[in-house]
Amino acid sequence: MLIKPPVAIVMGSQSDWPTMRLAAETLEVLEVEYEARIVSAHRTPERLVEFATNARADGFKVIIAGAGGAAHLPGMIAAMTPLPVFGVPVKSKALNGQDSLLSIVQMPGGIPVGTLAIGEPGAINAALIAAAVLALSDDELADRLDAYRARQTASVPLFPADTE
Amino acid sequence: MLIKPPVAIVMGSQSDWPTMRLAAETLEVLEVEYEARIVSAHRTPERLVEFATNARADGFKVIIAGAGGAAHLPGMIAAMTPLPVFGVPVKSKALNGQDSLLSIVQMPGGIPVGTLAIGEPGAINAALIAAAVLALSDDELADRLDAYRARQTASVPLFPADTE
Amino acid sequence: MLIKPPVAIVMGSQSDWPTMRLAAETLEVLEVEYEARIVSAHRTPERLVEFATNARADGFKVIIAGAGGAAHLPGMIAAMTPLPVFGVPVKSKALNGQDSLLSIVQMPGGIPVGTLAIGEPGAINAALIAAAVLALSDDELADRLDAYRARQTASVPLFPADTE
Amino acid sequence: MLIKPPVAIVMGSQSDWPTMRLAAETLEVLEVEYEARIVSAHRTPERLVEFATNARADGFKVIIAGAGGAAHLPGMIAAMTPLPVFGVPVKSKALNGQDSLLSIVQMPGGIPVGTLAIGEPGAINAALIAAAVLALSDDELADRLDAYRARQTASVPLFPADTE
Amino acid sequence: MLIKPPVAIVMGSQSDWPTMRLAAETLEVLEVEYEARIVSAHRTPERLVEFATNARADGFKVIIAGAGGAAHLPGMIAAMTPLPVFGVPVKSKALNGQDSLLSIVQMPGGIPVGTLAIGEPGAINAALIAAAVLALSDDELADRLDAYRARQTASVPLFPADTE
Amino acid sequence: MLIKPPVAIVMGSQSDWPTMRLAAETLEVLEVEYEARIVSAHRTPERLVEFATNARADGFKVIIAGAGGAAHLPGMIAAMTPLPVFGVPVKSKALNGQDSLLSIVQMPGGIPVGTLAIGEPGAINAALIAAAVLALSDDELADRLDAYRARQTASVPLFPADTE
Amino acid sequence: MLIKPPVAIVMGSQSDWPTMRLAAETLEVLEVEYEARIVSAHRTPERLVEFATNARADGFKVIIAGAGGAAHLPGMIAAMTPLPVFGVPVKSKALNGQDSLLSIVQMPGGIPVGTLAIGEPGAINAALIAAAVLALSDDELADRLDAYRARQTASVPLFPADTE
Amino acid sequence: MLIKPPVAIVMGSQSDWPTMRLAAETLEVLEVEYEARIVSAHRTPERLVEFATNARADGFKVIIAGAGGAAHLPGMIAAMTPLPVFGVPVKSKALNGQDSLLSIVQMPGGIPVGTLAIGEPGAINAALIAAAVLALSDDELADRLDAYRARQTASVPLFPADTE
Repeated sequence: MLIKPPVAIVMGSQSDWPTMRLAAETLEVLEVEYEARIVSAHRTPERLVEFATNARADGFKVIIAGAGGAAHLPGMIAAMTPLPVFGVPVKSKALNGQDSLLSIVQMPGGIPVGTLAIGEPGAINAALIAAAVLALSDDELADRLDAYRARQTASVPLFPADTE
Repeated sequence: MLIKPPVAIVMGSQSDWPTMRLAAETLEVLEVEYEARIVSAHRTPERLVEFATNARADGFKVIIAGAGGAAHLPGMIAAMTPLPVFGVPVKSKALNGQDSLLSIVQMPGGIPVGTLAIGEPGAINAALIAAAVLALSDDELADRLDAYRARQTASVPLFPADTE
Repeated sequence: MLIKPPVAIVMGSQSDWPTMRLAAETLEVLEVEYEARIVSAHRTPERLVEFATNARADGFKVIIAGAGGAAHLPGMIAAMTPLPVFGVPVKSKALNGQDSLLSIVQMPGGIPVGTLAIGEPGAINAALIAAAVLALSDDELADRLDAYRARQTASVPLFPADTE
Repeated sequence: MLIKPPVAIVMGSQSDWPTMRLAAETLEVLEVEYEARIVSAHRTPERLVEFATNARADGFKVIIAGAGGAAHLPGMIAAMTPLPVFGVPVKSKALNGQDSLLSIVQMPGGIPVGTLAIGEPGAINAALIAAAVLALSDDELADRLDAYRARQTASVPLFPADTE
Repeated sequence: MLIKPPVAIVMGSQSDWPTMRLAAETLEVLEVEYEARIVSAHRTPERLVEFATNARADGFKVIIAGAGGAAHLPGMIAAMTPLPVFGVPVKSKALNGQDSLLSIVQMPGGIPVGTLAIGEPGAINAALIAAAVLALSDDELADRLDAYRARQTASVPLFPADTE
Repeated sequence: MLIKPPVAIVMGSQSDWPTMRLAAETLEVLEVEYEARIVSAHRTPERLVEFATNARADGFKVIIAGAGGAAHLPGMIAAMTPLPVFGVPVKSKALNGQDSLLSIVQMPGGIPVGTLAIGEPGAINAALIAAAVLALSDDELADRLDAYRARQTASVPLFPADTE
Repeated sequence: MLIKPPVAIVMGSQSDWPTMRLAAETLEVLEVEYEARIVSAHRTPERLVEFATNARADGFKVIIAGAGGAAHLPGMIAAMTPLPVFGVPVKSKALNGQDSLLSIVQMPGGIPVGTLAIGEPGAINAALIAAAVLALSDDELADRLDAYRARQTASVPLFPADTE
Repeated sequence: MLIKPPVAIVMGSQSDWPTMRLAAETLEVLEVEYEARIVSAHRTPERLVEFATNARADGFKVIIAGAGGAAHLPGMIAAMTPLPVFGVPVKSKALNGQDSLLSIVQMPGGIPVGTLAIGEPGAINAALIAAAVLALSDDELADRLDAYRARQTASVPLFPADTE
């Protein structure tokens, strides 16, 4: 098997992709390679076990996992790999992601999931914190991340505009 | 291996037992055999897989699962067994079980967990609904359950008493 | 009177049907017979009493009850029948089903309602857990349920697709 | 059967009495007769039906109903009597009465329950609004209620005191 | 000044009328006379004082008050009149009426507001409970209310229809 | 009548004083004079009207108002005076001040209440923002406020200590 | 550098302007000068420090700050200036401004932010309370504010109209 | 200046230490060096700026930040350093950490904070995810972390015990 890229982006269903795509796009801007996969904790538990237990040996360094509702995917992956896992609570239909957020963030002591904001900002930020982690041992990525942040700062206008 | 009793009571940690014990005691009153086990979705994921994937072959009929916080145990068991799974949201320290409830009840379409109330009433009721399920094919249990309900009805006083 | 099918699907009003229809359709896929009825706990309390007190004698085995807002139907049916009752919190207009969920799940110790997720996923899952209960004494249904779950697992794509 | 007093105070269980007693005591101060009874919607549904369907013929004028958790008692009484029903959400163990409040107040159009505050203030106020209703056709009670309100106003000190 | 009709429907702003109109329409069906007025607790406090302090002398019997957000109108009217006050939490823009509900229902012991559901069902029910109060001393209204409830019961179909 | 001090601290009941006393103590540290009064919006509405409508003429400059539950006091004062009003949501018994907060902060456009945090921090901060307002035209107070903030900054230890 | 106008309106991003523009428009009606700026606590922290630490010396008297989600802008400005700061919780995408509100209002004792309602009413009210503060030492502004409030009172119709 | 250890544990006040100490103790078990400091975003904003802007140059690799209420510390640090920041929502007095959680996790796209659970489990898990990050380039730490997780798994008993 080929060595995996440093970041895995996994999500519970195809319907999470419009959100999680933001993580992928952000990694692309930062020139961080990733693999995006659908792994449903509930509908494909064997795939979950196989993915999570092999993630480190496969060569992944950081895992981004997005899910909605009773969102068990990030926590269950974290239970089966020592790699850092970042969770994205996808906005749910009835409760706007409040269920997703609590299901992901309220992990018991012993198994951490670094949780980001509900929805698209969370997906972007999962990519950014994954990059920040990888940048600790990759100076070129650190430079690219610095530049990303500098561009972001520079892009904030001084005054609000009515044309919006 | 010996045939298992009809009901498994599993919980995420020893700290859930003061709540889940109510399920056990209720089953005892109804003369329904059970096995109580600790299975942590997060700290013992292999035990979880082994328990859940074998539960039907082992002879269990119904599973009662209690957990708190980001309570993934009931849903992950339901992902790996076709048996009916009943979930008890154990009261959590910071959020009083609101996180436990949403983590258990908000399962995606396809993998059901029949969820009971937060805490002790939920543990009692998980035993009662498990018994109701088993009573569908066990007339003597149905009689005992009827008697339990009749006693319960009879025990409600007509008037409130100040001595409480 | 004719013997009733094993599953009753009851709901508080016609407006619950777009949600509860998912339960009906799921039972149809599993070839489980059901009867769908409107029983309003508040507007037709006599119908409620008649339905619930006769449900077992009529031949029903499992009851699926959906309601929204101050959703009393599932709990009141459970108060009047020893059959297993599964509750579906229908999404409400102002509070998105948070009121429905709490009104159904927070039953006192003694009278259980196995509660599913808010809205359509809950309706599907009520059908699935009802089937799982019936499958305990119906090997052919158990096979169909296994097949349903296997198809569901097989239908999860490996990779997210941008075409969605 | 003897004619009933104008107010019925009903509650779901003995454990509601420490709260509902405040309603009784307030009625006593206002010299309004009442009968206090335990009627569990879930554990004594027959008693519920008998109480509610006969309430008007028995001579009751106003009903105060208190319950906690999935609090179905006030709404189910309102479904079976045309008398005005006032609901008191009793503070629940896990959710502090948020479940009780939503279960009581979020009634569908067609069956009203006039809902008061969670807990003791709600019990006092249920008595006061019941008295206000009866005072519409009882001038002496209206005078007593006016005096009660005047005493209440007079009892508010002008300045806060450190000795509390 | 002319004698006022038995029911006043007051609301905090014109924007509450699409909700509160349901109260008016329900009273019309029951042939109960009412007067609908805009009284803003915050923008017209003098009008509030004048309305509330004179309400009983003006001949009103029952007051229905609807407001949204920090909804002070029902409670402030109740502070200034001994008449029974029923509050309708109007759905608010940001919080869907959760703020309106808590602002209306959580009155301190001493000043009651009988609170109905958020939004349109609450407006309908405010009219119905007002009618139930007036029916205590108006047998013809009691008959009309009985008939209304009977029609409501009769209008519930037995089976859900796909055509909706 | 004597000229009033610049700050009025009003509260709905004596039971709010343990919280609101922190506002008084903070003003004392800053050498800002105040008058503390109990004004119940619900039990003493006439006192409310008299206080609020006269507040500016009496010489008050800023009003701090604390209340709990359906906390109408700050908003009703703001409705009757053009002075700046700061609201303190006092922690309530059942809902921990969530009702107090929403009842105070969610004012409609047109009548502002500057709302502080729930409970004691809110009382301290109401005093501080009142002082900041007065300091705009009182250089000596501005100096005292600067010194207060400097002492506060200096009092933060560099390292956490186990002895706490 | 020129002297700044008395009010600064700052916001975390251009996307807050449709809300915060209401504050600007309200100040214009009151003929209060202001400067509107974008200062992102998270993306432009240096700009934040520069703005907040210089605000008093620059001549600002009152600061209005709006932000959404994890809304740190108002509190961080308040940490770095002794001027009164008023916070506007902008409605957020997933949680409707509940996160914005708690992030702004729940400041620790020592650093106050006077918080207004979520969204547009809050923006209007931030302008009004800022004006009320400035009016304490500007009689003409006090007159204009009185007139604004009088017009507002006069604009409330007596009766609801169906034409809306 | 001496090179800093790889992990900084910062907290908003001494009162956060009983929670954050769990992070320190967990790092000690894993033999990861850290420095614990108090940095109040609100009371010591200069210390915040100095700490955060220098954190990378000082030699820190990962930052753990705990705070309660309107918890701005983790997000503001993340705004001023490219290092990965992990946030711990400390349980707050009135709202049990719900405000802390939302203030930390709901960061806008662009500035990530990997958020852990409310309170002590979150502090433990912040240490564990920090260690997992450092273990990516430290094989011995990876081994210690593996051993920690293995001990944790082994410590889960098979059966619940009544002696607890």
